[in-house]
Amino acid sequence: MLDRLRAIVGEKGLVADPVEMAPWVTDFRGRRRGSALAVVAPASTAEVAAMVTLCAATGQPIFPLGGNTGLCCGAVPESDRPGKPGIVLSLRRMNRIRAIDQAAGIATVDAGVVLGDLHAAAAAVRRQFPLHLGSEGSAQLGGLISTNAGGTGVVRYGPMRDLVAGLEVVLPDGRVLSDLAALRKDNTGYMLRHLFIGAEGTLGVITAAALRLHAQTPNTAHAWVSVADPEAAIALLTALQDRAGSTIQAFELVSASQFELVRRHIERIRIPFSPIPAWSVLIELGSEDASTALNTILEETLGAFLARDHLKDAVIATSEQQAAEFWHVRHSVTEANVKEGIGIVHDIAIRTSDVAAFIVAADKIAAERFPQAVTQVVCHLGDGNVHYILMFQRSFWESLKDPEAFALEVERAIHDAAATYAGTFSAEHGVGRKLIAELQRLADPLRYELMGQIKTLFDPHGLMNPGVLLPAGRAWHAASSSTAARAMAAAPGSR
Amino acid sequence: MLDRLRAIVGEKGLVADPVEMAPWVTDFRGRRRGSALAVVAPASTAEVAAMVTLCAATGQPIFPLGGNTGLCCGAVPESDRPGKPGIVLSLRRMNRIRAIDQAAGIATVDAGVVLGDLHAAAAAVRRQFPLHLGSEGSAQLGGLISTNAGGTGVVRYGPMRDLVAGLEVVLPDGRVLSDLAALRKDNTGYMLRHLFIGAEGTLGVITAAALRLHAQTPNTAHAWVSVADPEAAIALLTALQDRAGSTIQAFELVSASQFELVRRHIERIRIPFSPIPAWSVLIELGSEDASTALNTILEETLGAFLARDHLKDAVIATSEQQAAEFWHVRHSVTEANVKEGIGIVHDIAIRTSDVAAFIVAADKIAAERFPQAVTQVVCHLGDGNVHYILMFQRSFWESLKDPEAFALEVERAIHDAAATYAGTFSAEHGVGRKLIAELQRLADPLRYELMGQIKTLFDPHGLMNPGVLLPAGRAWHAASSSTAARAMAAAPGSR
Repeated sequence: MLDRLRAIVGEKGLVADPVEMAPWVTDFRGRRRGSALAVVAPASTAEVAAMVTLCAATGQPIFPLGGNTGLCCGAVPESDRPGKPGIVLSLRRMNRIRAIDQAAGIATVDAGVVLGDLHAAAAAVRRQFPLHLGSEGSAQLGGLISTNAGGTGVVRYGPMRDLVAGLEVVLPDGRVLSDLAALRKDNTGYMLRHLFIGAEGTLGVITAAALRLHAQTPNTAHAWVSVADPEAAIALLTALQDRAGSTIQAFELVSASQFELVRRHIERIRIPFSPIPAWSVLIELGSEDASTALNTILEETLGAFLARDHLKDAVIATSEQQAAEFWHVRHSVTEANVKEGIGIVHDIAIRTSDVAAFIVAADKIAAERFPQAVTQVVCHLGDGNVHYILMFQRSFWESLKDPEAFALEVERAIHDAAATYAGTFSAEHGVGRKLIAELQRLADPLRYELMGQIKTLFDPHGLMNPGVLLPAGRAWHAASSSTAARAMAAAPGSR
Repeated sequence: MLDRLRAIVGEKGLVADPVEMAPWVTDFRGRRRGSALAVVAPASTAEVAAMVTLCAATGQPIFPLGGNTGLCCGAVPESDRPGKPGIVLSLRRMNRIRAIDQAAGIATVDAGVVLGDLHAAAAAVRRQFPLHLGSEGSAQLGGLISTNAGGTGVVRYGPMRDLVAGLEVVLPDGRVLSDLAALRKDNTGYMLRHLFIGAEGTLGVITAAALRLHAQTPNTAHAWVSVADPEAAIALLTALQDRAGSTIQAFELVSASQFELVRRHIERIRIPFSPIPAWSVLIELGSEDASTALNTILEETLGAFLARDHLKDAVIATSEQQAAEFWHVRHSVTEANVKEGIGIVHDIAIRTSDVAAFIVAADKIAAERFPQAVTQVVCHLGDGNVHYILMFQRSFWESLKDPEAFALEVERAIHDAAATYAGTFSAEHGVGRKLIAELQRLADPLRYELMGQIKTLFDPHGLMNPGVLLPAGRAWHAASSSTAARAMAAAPGSR
């Protein structure tokens, strides 16, 4: 097998030494370690197709790997079949920006291109690729598409799904499906592209993408607002949408408990309020056009709110430095939380209109069932995405007999609260290996059954990233086959 | 069968008299007339589900009908099975706007709601639903979603696909799949929604949708620009994207030959240039914010172009009335063409960057092969959507032995030209019954095969709108089954 792989990708494209392989088979936070026969790094789509064809013929599972920055262990190789440890497929050598089409606003890239490199290439033609997240220096576009990555820009530009104009995918049988023409309009039948976006590598290997570029917005304005409660934040968002909806680039709601930890653990931060507001809203507006008076828009909208007493106080940044200081506080949240203790972070999404009620419900659950926790809220309010956090002290955590079971109990309780508002337990992080059981427990059964049927259709032998998103061992297959058989028998009147 | 249908939908929901049924089984332009056992109009999703279940059990085809405004005969009932004429399913009684959620920016509507009624409901909460087309007074949202409708607003807001946040669908087996929670972020597996958008009713019946509302843009600016050629129009678009990309609400490129016909046939129109420019660009910018100086943005961007001689002349509207006059000329195109003669209209999309080259190629084909035609261009340039028209005099047309065959020859030639630029023959109009053969001829074979497999998965008996999009008689089924069998046999090494 190794010789046949070497014949496809060459010596440079193959790592089979267990020590050298270690970083490729281990989750980047060290939570989970897998194993594989080899790490293979093809240099072209043709090499990927040849490798996938070989694996299909020999029954070797394939574990696609991007930048290994995922939060749900979806890139850890764990084969479900004895004697077939599987291949880690790294796209790192496919890192070419194939073309930038300024008039059409399309960048065509290999899947292994690092997000930060695309940012730079877009800027070189006075455009931006508006997906931003902490790991942009190492996250690869193939992985970001396979997990439908989010980030702070979703409120204006949508998640990765909205930025993909075309894909090139190697299917589990080795054939290459491509729609890199990336037409803005194309009404010639079923849209297959969206099945692969967010599929976490379980339906095929994304080898390239056509991605939408947007105009740059060099003119920005920033505010830090103190509001009485999440309801007031929602009312402010609605008013700002009326006045300048399409300029809203960030609208973040953060609880005092969260910013207290930033003040406690991070040096050289400046918070423009003392004491820290019960609820802070951080706002960024942006425009391509330098003449649009964004600060005036903020002043007038916030002023009307202050007058009506919905809003307690507000600071509009008067310099780029002050704006940077605001966002430095926001971006220090993760580091502060790691220093504080053990935080169970949830990735809830609900309708924006339900966010206030959800937070009340989650607080009640936390107070009653997990009184040892301090709760924190970090919310992309414009998307209804609430990172609801229960923070435990290390001493408490170390006293637990089974911390993993306890963490699961916490997660289930908060996920259940989201479900009562028709919300989701995975807004932007995905499912991976971590949340498979939660998906089975909480997904609409009909939708879950159809997912199994789609998986069977594209990957009947379950070789693509087995054990990620759907259970390994083709458990999804049994359910979907019986349903298909039932459907086949359901229409006696048809010929 | 009629009694069983009446038991589901009541007397009010059933039309079975052939004379009364005539308008429901005939294309709105009278090009094609079908027949059916009955026209059934359920009043609820439950009634739709009961009716679909009954049809599945009895092998009756179902022909979903919206406002009957489609351009490709996708709503004409033509059964492919002897003795089973099928049921026309009209959603007209399901016309309730279920809810408007202002903070989340979501309207939840029955599929039978007319587009114009949604416009009014959105305006009542200071929002807009930004899909606009000529038939908005009768087109229904279910049909507009099933055909992924376009229109002039796509350059800013995208096609219908980008405006759908959730769907309720009755599957061909009668079960109801719903994701009306309409979360902005949800990464819990395969995105099924996009399969139904643009499927033209062949995978199930859309009974309701959650649709995205946008902020209103009361501040607008309008220009009519004379450019030397399509290349100059593309350069102007790129410059305007740099300066104010997100405010561009329309960017239409129209040939002199087209506006000559408007001047010839339409009364009381005002064209601000004499003679009519070889190439006109009509631009609309829009902003929520009243302070943004859109006219200044136009003046400065156009001024820089005039100075560099890319652009011949420009008029910026100085009043709402003048702006309305500009757009009245543009919107009179269809009426003028009907008065002039027989126009073969193509619905091409290519990359914006390829539009100029495509027009040159199409002009060459027209001049060489169809010298009797005058050619006209009406292009949504921002989307790369070119309505390329060959206009024939009635006298010539009446001299043809087989006008239908001649029209097909014209269409194939222009579609082939688009294909050389990786373009599509159906940008926004769909496939329907009209373009089935072109889809078979021009689609990527792998994609077409996968479409057949998806059709087989959802509708194994071919009862949903047979003969639309894919050929009737389950011709798609044979191809996809053999492929599935091949795939099943392809991986001997797997268990």
